[in-house]
Amino acid sequence: MVFREPREGRNKGKEVSVTKKRIGIVAPSVYILPRHYERTNALVAAHFPDVELVWHPQVFARSPDEVSGHTGFVWSDAETVPDPMMHGHFAGSDEQRTAAFVEMANREDIDAIWFARGGYGAGRIAPDVLPRLGPAARNKTYMGYSDASYMLALLYRAGFPHLCHGPMVVDGSEEARMRALAWLARKDPRSLEPGLKVGERYVAFNLISAAMMVGTPLWPDVTGHVLMVEEVGEYLYAVDRCFFALTSALWRNAPAEIRLGQVTDTRENDRPFGKDEVGIAQDWCQRTNIRYGGRCEIGHYAGNKIVPFGRFG
Amino acid sequence: MVFREPREGRNKGKEVSVTKKRIGIVAPSVYILPRHYERTNALVAAHFPDVELVWHPQVFARSPDEVSGHTGFVWSDAETVPDPMMHGHFAGSDEQRTAAFVEMANREDIDAIWFARGGYGAGRIAPDVLPRLGPAARNKTYMGYSDASYMLALLYRAGFPHLCHGPMVVDGSEEARMRALAWLARKDPRSLEPGLKVGERYVAFNLISAAMMVGTPLWPDVTGHVLMVEEVGEYLYAVDRCFFALTSALWRNAPAEIRLGQVTDTRENDRPFGKDEVGIAQDWCQRTNIRYGGRCEIGHYAGNKIVPFGRFG
Repeated sequence: MVFREPREGRNKGKEVSVTKKRIGIVAPSVYILPRHYERTNALVAAHFPDVELVWHPQVFARSPDEVSGHTGFVWSDAETVPDPMMHGHFAGSDEQRTAAFVEMANREDIDAIWFARGGYGAGRIAPDVLPRLGPAARNKTYMGYSDASYMLALLYRAGFPHLCHGPMVVDGSEEARMRALAWLARKDPRSLEPGLKVGERYVAFNLISAAMMVGTPLWPDVTGHVLMVEEVGEYLYAVDRCFFALTSALWRNAPAEIRLGQVTDTRENDRPFGKDEVGIAQDWCQRTNIRYGGRCEIGHYAGNKIVPFGRFG
Repeated sequence: MVFREPREGRNKGKEVSVTKKRIGIVAPSVYILPRHYERTNALVAAHFPDVELVWHPQVFARSPDEVSGHTGFVWSDAETVPDPMMHGHFAGSDEQRTAAFVEMANREDIDAIWFARGGYGAGRIAPDVLPRLGPAARNKTYMGYSDASYMLALLYRAGFPHLCHGPMVVDGSEEARMRALAWLARKDPRSLEPGLKVGERYVAFNLISAAMMVGTPLWPDVTGHVLMVEEVGEYLYAVDRCFFALTSALWRNAPAEIRLGQVTDTRENDRPFGKDEVGIAQDWCQRTNIRYGGRCEIGHYAGNKIVPFGRFG
């Protein structure tokens, strides 16, 4: 989009054309809170004159009844509310999240879609979203991670060319959110995961999401790819179980390599598992004859870098 | 096995032949504690003169170094021990658990295999166990649930005819353990899940185990079966995610029906999910065009009944 803006300094008073990237924000999983909205607007105002954020009101929906426009929303930074029956887990019903995603993805005047937050829910709507997406949706860049993995996976399967694993609106780290915006607005190469090599193919997913998806029609063909995985808040035995599920299911269409992102906030079991996440990844890669490619910089942490899906460069 | 035992009462002094069922106990997942061993022996001594339990010492192994014979074991009812490096998650290493299972399953003098405990670990060894099982293994009855689901699934896939979902040695409920023994020793029909109908085919699995297995080579063909599932200790959103994974993956080889066992010890999330386990099961059955068959009496609770796999009656 091209806007006319007044200049400061030497060219004060003259107008120049500034090409603004319009970034649409949707929440196919869980809602965000007002503070996420406000601090992201402030970040863009301070550092990204070339960005215009387009917030779909659905991102604030904390009940299936909260649909269109801000007026109906509970505008509060409290994560939970007193009456449990008033508020569901998701950012609106499946139908509302589907409609919002489809509307934003199909808009001609929006350049990119930024996932607001993970949690759980994108997998419930992805199969209904896909058939409703037109050519404008296919040309957009999409960025998210964690529960967004379900949508990224299905869109990758469907051949969408500009999918990225990267930070979301809700991320606590300003550095991470700036990295995401710098890629969405400017394709800033400093945002990229440092291990990417020209000509190689990449996908990156949350581990348990991948393990849950791998047998379903959402899962793309990752044969020959470098598959990156990350996890948060699980027991190590559950991480092992996810590696079992993922690598065992991939024996016929194996990735060339698996790289391990951060495994953060691991939960304490009543007895130690006896192996850390690196040992687990190495073990399952060896068992299933997939190359273990070491660590990579993705995950639920400030260092979460951008991984564009498909052939790099 | 036929034993000569002295009779009491009217026939005191005469010997009669008593056919004892020899039930071998193995632990392909997590170890048991001395109290589980002692109370199960006491139960058999009190109520099952027709049963002889054959304990493989591997069931007590709490470290990969604890292998053969009781002497090396930490004989303690403490679930955890001070030095975390001395004790792994499993009842011995993968190799030890595999060897113990194969040894017991292949023994000609044992009639049935009873899984000692779930937890996590059977899926790690099942693919290595199967090719080492001979004809004597195929003729045995096997009983377990929870993490035993991985082994039951692969053995069912391999055509083993006498697999059962049912209580294990470690179960707290004496009623549940007696029910298991009454089926293993006497095929007592009172042990059976009450909804079974002659001619119908059944399988029963732990839900997350099924969701993790469904894309892998462990998963059997459940087309046309009644599939029963149960879960313990998960968030409701994770139960929903499992139903997503399982039902979405089964679209090509769908069961005739899904029945829902107990979903116990559900974990509290920071916000309510907005639907209980029945609503979740109904929702996913409807989405994937599988009949929802209501509740069934399996799960992590005293009422856990026996479900023999395959065609009933």
